[in-house]
Amino acid sequence: MQRIANLLICKDGKVLLLKKPRRNWYVAPGGKMEVGESILVSAVREFTEETNATPIGPHLKGIYTMVIEEDGERIDEWMLFTFVANDLEGTPFHETREGILEWHPVEALNTLPMAEGDRTNLLFAVQEKGMQYGTFVYTPDFSLITETIQQSSEGEVNNG
Amino acid sequence: MQRIANLLICKDGKVLLLKKPRRNWYVAPGGKMEVGESILVSAVREFTEETNATPIGPHLKGIYTMVIEEDGERIDEWMLFTFVANDLEGTPFHETREGILEWHPVEALNTLPMAEGDRTNLLFAVQEKGMQYGTFVYTPDFSLITETIQQSSEGEVNNG
Repeated sequence: MQRIANLLICKDGKVLLLKKPRRNWYVAPGGKMEVGESILVSAVREFTEETNATPIGPHLKGIYTMVIEEDGERIDEWMLFTFVANDLEGTPFHETREGILEWHPVEALNTLPMAEGDRTNLLFAVQEKGMQYGTFVYTPDFSLITETIQQSSEGEVNNG
Repeated sequence: MQRIANLLICKDGKVLLLKKPRRNWYVAPGGKMEVGESILVSAVREFTEETNATPIGPHLKGIYTMVIEEDGERIDEWMLFTFVANDLEGTPFHETREGILEWHPVEALNTLPMAEGDRTNLLFAVQEKGMQYGTFVYTPDFSLITETIQQSSEGEVNNG
């Protein structure tokens, strides 16, 4: 089971996105969790490798089960963990092996080309309090078949 | 990669724990995530199956990478997702196939017999705000070798 962590910087009303060359779709920088890592350590390491900058105060916003279906058969499944941070240290690369890093206004998340599930995740990450959970089912070509979403927020804490 | 979700009810200063027969160690009710589920759905389903009660307002508090090492070799790895809820609907079973369900004062989490990593997770879940992440390395006999912990809390939210 592959586990992917990505991290969206949202600073001064702008978000840092990676434009991937294959379709010119935008994603938040990230990549694969390694054996024995915690998911926060993965997110920070992958973000730093891809951007040359370090996120400040990263916090988990969503956990998603990603499923690829073809002809009604499940052919792949992985988990996606989406973090947000409101600041970063260092100057991000402009171009990397993975694509081109660009700052966009937060509102552009509504319209930039990207996987529809990513739009759901990234808008939640920057606009809402609490945690989002869900399952996204895609075709092999990344058309969204179904999305099922839940969310939760912090309750009381027993500091007795 | 196995994924386990567990859920601790913390209500009126008491927590609902499952005493497992093998060592009389305490755990939070939970079990294995199924294919295609979101992790929140897994936690609620497993809790309900094990207790006959439904958690109200469950929220994720921790994600842990669990590693078993023997003679310096990693022989198993899984992920643990720990949720908390401050209320429940229905009356929990007393005894189940998995063990005995018991209410204990929150403070008992400091002293009841359990895996040392579980103690770290469950105390965080009921006492602290935000999210905890970490890696726990155990012997096959569940002696804790190392624990590495991080935490994070919700930052600003862009409601512009």
